Amino acid sequence: MHSPHFTADSSANGIRERDFTVGDVPGVLWSPSSGADRAPLVLMGHGGGAHKKHPAMLGRARPLVTGHGFHVAVIDAPGHGDRPRTAQDERDIAALRAAQAAGAPEGPVVVPYNARLAERAVPEWQATLDALQTLPEIGAGGPVGYAGIALGTAIGVPLVAAEPRIKAAVLGMMWPDALIGAARRITVPVEFTLQWDDERIPREAALTLFDAFASKEKTLHANAGAHADFPRFTEADSAARFLARHLGPSVGARA
Amino acid sequence: MHSPHFTADSSANGIRERDFTVGDVPGVLWSPSSGADRAPLVLMGHGGGAHKKHPAMLGRARPLVTGHGFHVAVIDAPGHGDRPRTAQDERDIAALRAAQAAGAPEGPVVVPYNARLAERAVPEWQATLDALQTLPEIGAGGPVGYAGIALGTAIGVPLVAAEPRIKAAVLGMMWPDALIGAARRITVPVEFTLQWDDERIPREAALTLFDAFASKEKTLHANAGAHADFPRFTEADSAARFLARHLGPSVGARA
Repeated sequence: MHSPHFTADSSANGIRERDFTVGDVPGVLWSPSSGADRAPLVLMGHGGGAHKKHPAMLGRARPLVTGHGFHVAVIDAPGHGDRPRTAQDERDIAALRAAQAAGAPEGPVVVPYNARLAERAVPEWQATLDALQTLPEIGAGGPVGYAGIALGTAIGVPLVAAEPRIKAAVLGMMWPDALIGAARRITVPVEFTLQWDDERIPREAALTLFDAFASKEKTLHANAGAHADFPRFTEADSAARFLARHLGPSVGARA
Repeated sequence: MHSPHFTADSSANGIRERDFTVGDVPGVLWSPSSGADRAPLVLMGHGGGAHKKHPAMLGRARPLVTGHGFHVAVIDAPGHGDRPRTAQDERDIAALRAAQAAGAPEGPVVVPYNARLAERAVPEWQATLDALQTLPEIGAGGPVGYAGIALGTAIGVPLVAAEPRIKAAVLGMMWPDALIGAARRITVPVEFTLQWDDERIPREAALTLFDAFASKEKTLHANAGAHADFPRFTEADSAARFLARHLGPSVGARA
């Protein structure tokens, strides 16, 4: 098993940031700058059109890293951030722009586009997890969680279904069409968010995906407002508490 | 304006407990035992068949009182706790027992029964609030919130709709039938809980009530499991944070 290849290392505001690559895939690992205690790892998936260091990622990572002492890793999804786009990516993005410009429903474009990205991203995440678990401050067998909404859920649902090392997941804001089968195989605790007045993802579609998880412990957080009104701060805070509760007693004690 | 009539006063585990009456209605006021700083007040409604000092009430009050320095008041609902039942109460309770024994839907019995209780309880809560606001540690014009699920929501929805002093509310687990009109007049922030697999209140019924609130800021927390699986600890904790966020900046700073 190979370690990640680190390309940069800096610290600010209590967070150590290390850029890395695993194969061709670039990522970032955020850790408490206070030390190298072994601690749980949260894999975090960014949204469509965003990238590993989007401000929303650091916003969601901060309470986990500084509040709970966790490690958080984000990788660029295929065709996102520092990664090249394929011809198919370009066609999918053009189709999405056309649907948006026409005011047409986005689901018929986003669902197959994101399913194609997920097919490439799941093995990349698994290789990234293999590499990160060689680090002594993470370790093989340590608790691992996943958090990602929108594209982060299109990738996260098949990843969590395929990956027994992931013990809890924060998901939300995605159509169910390509994900129902994988969702029905997920039994770990899930916290799922949707926007009650989402103009892009119909309410019934999002509720159908939540309903599909086989998890005995699952919680839906539905907030009033449109897609972009998602209350990032309160939900990031809630996600951090949820992950801290489920990723081991040593962690609960620090929360 | 008359003060509440206090009948007992004790402190334990950081919480001062004062029993009181306002007219014929008995209540309890929980406050931080550390002092008499002016602080927000949360009115808390108990569930059907319970009473003002049910363990679930102290469980929900504790994070508010010891975590945020709030006052919490609970009164016995009509026909509950230390209060006599009317002949109508007895008929309603008998009808509910009969429906439960027959495995029949409870809604057709609980909805009119709880609506009758709410009609009596709303003016009692308003008189209680008048009285509590004469206390210097609460004060007229201070922030007031409401929290109550099930019967506490059947009473809480018309109370919050009628009472402009209430600035935020935690509600949930009730049929919409008797409450839709009042819910549509509520504009303060609402946190609403339901059980995703509730065998008593159909999912669609509870979602319909959540949908009816006119509040620009409202959040639904739906947890997997049956009616009795309601995760009291995590939701009490969340409710305390929600009320602390909305009942004034001095409070947020203490959270």
